[in-house]
Amino acid sequence: MAVAACWLAGALYLPTAQAEDGYELWLRYRPSATERANPYRARVSQLVATTRTPTQAAARTELLRGLDGLLGAAPPLSETVTADGAVIVGTPSSSPLIAGLGWDLRGAGPEGYLIRSAVVNGHSVTVVAANEDIGALYGAFHFLRLLQTGQPMGRLDLRESPRTQLRVLNHWDNLDGHVERGYAGASIWDWHKLPDYLDPRYTDYARANASLGINGTVLNNVNSNALSLTPMYLEKAAALAGVFRPYGIRVFLSARFSAPIEIGGLKTADPLDPEVQRWWRAKADEIYRVIPDFGGFLVKANSEGQPGPQDYGRSHADGANLLADALAPHGGTVMWRAFVYSHEEPDDRAKQAYTEFVPLDGKFRDNVMVQVKNGAIDFQPREPFHPLFGAMPKTPLMMEFQITKEYLGFATHLVYLGPLFEEVLAADTRVRGKGSTVAKVIDGSLHGYALTGMAGVANIGADRNWSGSHFDQANWYAYGRLAWNPSQDSRDIAEEWVRMTFSNDADVVAPVVGMMMGSREAAVDYMTPLGLHHLMGRGHHYGPAPWIEGGPRADWTSVYYHRATRDGIGFDRTASGSNAVAQYAPPVARRFGDLTQVPEGFLLWFHHVPWDYRTKSGRPLWDELVHRYTRGVDYVRQMRRTWHRLDGRIDPECHAQVAAFLAIQEKEAQWWRDASIAYFQTFSGRPLPEGYPPPAHPLEYYQSLEFPYAPGNG
Amino acid sequence: MAVAACWLAGALYLPTAQAEDGYELWLRYRPSATERANPYRARVSQLVATTRTPTQAAARTELLRGLDGLLGAAPPLSETVTADGAVIVGTPSSSPLIAGLGWDLRGAGPEGYLIRSAVVNGHSVTVVAANEDIGALYGAFHFLRLLQTGQPMGRLDLRESPRTQLRVLNHWDNLDGHVERGYAGASIWDWHKLPDYLDPRYTDYARANASLGINGTVLNNVNSNALSLTPMYLEKAAALAGVFRPYGIRVFLSARFSAPIEIGGLKTADPLDPEVQRWWRAKADEIYRVIPDFGGFLVKANSEGQPGPQDYGRSHADGANLLADALAPHGGTVMWRAFVYSHEEPDDRAKQAYTEFVPLDGKFRDNVMVQVKNGAIDFQPREPFHPLFGAMPKTPLMMEFQITKEYLGFATHLVYLGPLFEEVLAADTRVRGKGSTVAKVIDGSLHGYALTGMAGVANIGADRNWSGSHFDQANWYAYGRLAWNPSQDSRDIAEEWVRMTFSNDADVVAPVVGMMMGSREAAVDYMTPLGLHHLMGRGHHYGPAPWIEGGPRADWTSVYYHRATRDGIGFDRTASGSNAVAQYAPPVARRFGDLTQVPEGFLLWFHHVPWDYRTKSGRPLWDELVHRYTRGVDYVRQMRRTWHRLDGRIDPECHAQVAAFLAIQEKEAQWWRDASIAYFQTFSGRPLPEGYPPPAHPLEYYQSLEFPYAPGNG
Repeated sequence: MAVAACWLAGALYLPTAQAEDGYELWLRYRPSATERANPYRARVSQLVATTRTPTQAAARTELLRGLDGLLGAAPPLSETVTADGAVIVGTPSSSPLIAGLGWDLRGAGPEGYLIRSAVVNGHSVTVVAANEDIGALYGAFHFLRLLQTGQPMGRLDLRESPRTQLRVLNHWDNLDGHVERGYAGASIWDWHKLPDYLDPRYTDYARANASLGINGTVLNNVNSNALSLTPMYLEKAAALAGVFRPYGIRVFLSARFSAPIEIGGLKTADPLDPEVQRWWRAKADEIYRVIPDFGGFLVKANSEGQPGPQDYGRSHADGANLLADALAPHGGTVMWRAFVYSHEEPDDRAKQAYTEFVPLDGKFRDNVMVQVKNGAIDFQPREPFHPLFGAMPKTPLMMEFQITKEYLGFATHLVYLGPLFEEVLAADTRVRGKGSTVAKVIDGSLHGYALTGMAGVANIGADRNWSGSHFDQANWYAYGRLAWNPSQDSRDIAEEWVRMTFSNDADVVAPVVGMMMGSREAAVDYMTPLGLHHLMGRGHHYGPAPWIEGGPRADWTSVYYHRATRDGIGFDRTASGSNAVAQYAPPVARRFGDLTQVPEGFLLWFHHVPWDYRTKSGRPLWDELVHRYTRGVDYVRQMRRTWHRLDGRIDPECHAQVAAFLAIQEKEAQWWRDASIAYFQTFSGRPLPEGYPPPAHPLEYYQSLEFPYAPGNG
Repeated sequence: MAVAACWLAGALYLPTAQAEDGYELWLRYRPSATERANPYRARVSQLVATTRTPTQAAARTELLRGLDGLLGAAPPLSETVTADGAVIVGTPSSSPLIAGLGWDLRGAGPEGYLIRSAVVNGHSVTVVAANEDIGALYGAFHFLRLLQTGQPMGRLDLRESPRTQLRVLNHWDNLDGHVERGYAGASIWDWHKLPDYLDPRYTDYARANASLGINGTVLNNVNSNALSLTPMYLEKAAALAGVFRPYGIRVFLSARFSAPIEIGGLKTADPLDPEVQRWWRAKADEIYRVIPDFGGFLVKANSEGQPGPQDYGRSHADGANLLADALAPHGGTVMWRAFVYSHEEPDDRAKQAYTEFVPLDGKFRDNVMVQVKNGAIDFQPREPFHPLFGAMPKTPLMMEFQITKEYLGFATHLVYLGPLFEEVLAADTRVRGKGSTVAKVIDGSLHGYALTGMAGVANIGADRNWSGSHFDQANWYAYGRLAWNPSQDSRDIAEEWVRMTFSNDADVVAPVVGMMMGSREAAVDYMTPLGLHHLMGRGHHYGPAPWIEGGPRADWTSVYYHRATRDGIGFDRTASGSNAVAQYAPPVARRFGDLTQVPEGFLLWFHHVPWDYRTKSGRPLWDELVHRYTRGVDYVRQMRRTWHRLDGRIDPECHAQVAAFLAIQEKEAQWWRDASIAYFQTFSGRPLPEGYPPPAHPLEYYQSLEFPYAPGNG
């Protein structure tokens, strides 16, 4: 109690600079409520944990830091158990006590752990046991999370291990510090001062990721620069790898396919050229000399102007195998992206990845994974699952989610992506009957993949709060939790995050989780309802621009995707149109292709529908569109009210920033609604349904807006 | 005592995130040492200050925050004096108590203040009195500084007013967030979220500047973008102006001379064209509608590719007067930069500003100031004072210093610029006899200027510590203090800053001030000793590159400036050469032009000297060069040792960062020395003097280094 009083007193003296600015993420470790703190203190009377390896030290330091914050004082360290309430952390080889328990840890694998109540030396204790140090570190974070989220600690018997092997962040960070599609400031990698200066932030980055089980990071943009593979930059990457290593995080690099030409002085990058093969082998050897646990390469090839094997008439498999062969002796992996579309426009861009990759199934080396975006277009607010999932049984497919909100309102819109991720993972491909979910593709259980993984395009930048907004931290968090276990419930994840980030108080948790859970559907509503997609501003992707047409290629316009005419709207991807539906397994294809069966959220994704088409609500399509646009704005308005009521329950600086961002979101949601309605009305020719206010400005106003310096432009 | 114990206890619980990361700058307000805190508490028993205006509120809030931090508790507020130790802050119109004192405040002017011990209602009190609220705010910061620096408070009788009117920061910040020559991260202006989101950092920026008396800020780069003058961006600038206004800081904008064409749709930007004149008047009217206290325009014209009046055959005066006439009705000022050099290369770039501007003396409107860099080339580690100072008696000249260390080691080199600023300000132009210092030109006393001012190119960015390093904060600080009073001693300023930033402990203050005071000379030594200049990498200006030649123009090379040959080195600017010396007043010209009189620090700036020339040390020139290069590196090594000894006396996170940066500085100082010696030795053909180690690598190694992503490139 004295300590708690001290804390409160201290808080009054803290200047603004130390307000809750979000830097600590979900690892805030603020004092637990008294009614919980006392029982917890009884369960955490001493800590038995060794520090003979850097990872062991990281676990013990984190436990001391966390328990100190949560309980007001760190427990004393002890060599052995001398009292009830000891917490023992380690592996059979690091801890004789754990070895003595004789538990069967085989099921935990190299990264899993048990957290169990037990009796040791006649004392009731809690044991965090793992096969490897990294498992113990993960378990330590889990143990802290139990306290952070106010869980009962009476009789613990938890068993966790990750369902995927590679849980990777992709940073689209350029060497000049710009983050493509970044809305949280510049890159956190200070390449200029590396390798000599190791910003403490790098360690905090590793801690945050390890707390989620993220075990890999691709440091540089998939639109890559060959200089990242030169000795000067490898030395810098190695310095980061050294910081991350104790936290179980391996460094990967995006590799530019033409690097043999650009930095190798070769005349070609042809994957079948022996000199090229030699160059990549030598480069891999060089990398592993400075980064012994280097993870491998991520490659964007023959897509949006990037070089690739097709420049030499070779296939994606030829390209991926070139790099795979170079990495194989060292145990590295190639993550080859399936986000490709050729210079020649196909009839439907949505079909291209499938068309190019399915014939290559089985042609990739064992250490190649194909990394597939969740949908076939590009991280839209809602897309049906990518038809490649389930279609390449012999090739390990990784999920690529976008955590950064390129198409979902940048940093200021409160859009919790957990439900989006969950919706995709839970989607049923039907390729091996019912229950053939995307999650089972990803975790390898459907096709028996030897490699499994998930990638998330990071939303991390130099902004003090890492992600550009407090709530965008939840998207990093949800990605990490789902990468560990793709079957988790996004609401449970949201609740965990809210408890750790804001408060365990039910009066805070329930409304904030409520706001979050509906927020993605709201964004779909005010941006692209009913299956509309790709209607944003050109280049920067900021704000509505359904009128975009012309330019270098049709599939970079909006009109290509919505196909609105006087008679209707939507992209016919049925047999009468592009027949993209045929890329799905027959039961799915039938459902998506049938106007009476298609989920309404995908209506205009798959069908061109007349304006007077009767939707499930009974409203004609046009009225339903207007209704949904409006409903999206209303949801944001409601979030503002909810948040306003939480004033005084949340740190003032944090509350004020979220409130300001919600005001921006409401303004921009209204802008999306009004601009979209004004534009589509020129096709529908229909009045707004009664009670729905007209757009605030004429269409020309919305079309006149320009944002040449909107952030994140690639 | 209980409170102090609480503080210490609290400190143990603070996670890394709240270590001393430099965010608080010199306004840390950490608890005073007990032996000082108790007497201070007796002198600060209550606070009498009103908050009827935003500036009054800012002053009172700052005092409460500062005293709370320094003394462990804020004094109670009181309506009147009821005890010894009251502190009264205000103006005769805001405070009847101050009015009642009947003090003569005329000398204080609109921004000055008195801080005096007095007796009020029979109690001994301290009074901070000013004519205007802003003076009281400045006085409040001064009062806090007395406590922060551990000054005795017994019998105060301080009187301060600024010696210059405009004390302005120039931000070279682009609308895309890049800061030209910025080494502290991206721009702090989040243009995308403005005007809706007002980052609390904007307020802290204003506080920091107000604490120094800085009263203006130019938000955007002198290499400017006309979009800054469009309604969308003016609304954003207005939002910032609203944050800054209570702190006495007015917003200025860099104006692009061709804006009438680019955003006005005119065919010309000719300053004598009536339509152009109308456009600028209308633009000024528009700006003042949204920013009623707008400060005015900063203009870089006809320099390095920027448009300007010479594009139409008009003079700089024609251009400046165009904008001045538009601003005049609103009280705005034009700051017209003298940093010009034409597309045609002159015989000596150092001469050009003088040649172009002196004939225009007297031709500028009353609300025009000409802003002159401290030297005639470009912010080199050492330059002689600019010959324009003293040469334009009818035109108010502003000093332009560069706070950001474009040529002085970026963020990682510890180089305290106070001595550089002081050296220039103390330089004697001799134009009105001895004592005609540059400071007296700047403060208006020499020529009776009606307008006076100083500009500093900001070193501020989104890095947590604002300036890229802890020690670079001292350069912002020193600039601000010297803008207020150009005659201040740079050592005194350093000591103040060290006390506020690190500690009042003499064992810290003395060594740190010592490090700082010699650091600029060390940089001159290891980069460009004896008057050498402009020998850095091309474009990014990172690292040594005395071999740079070729390219679009000779005066963008290094060889143009050092002119090394087999027979000697240096730029002959005497009558036998470019005769740039003739631009100075005769006594100065004689001194600089005479090899026996020229200060050795300017030797090779003004003279081409044989390699065996005997320097004042008795060493031949070549040996002296090698000696100085080496001495510079040695100084850095010594700073590292000194800093190492301070371990434990400085916050660990702060200490570690400085230590890492000093290690980088030593490495780079060695690089400068070695590369320069290796290069110049190819001309001198002489061996290194005994005991001086040879360069670590052959010249070709240094020449092969490339840094395409060095930060801050323009």
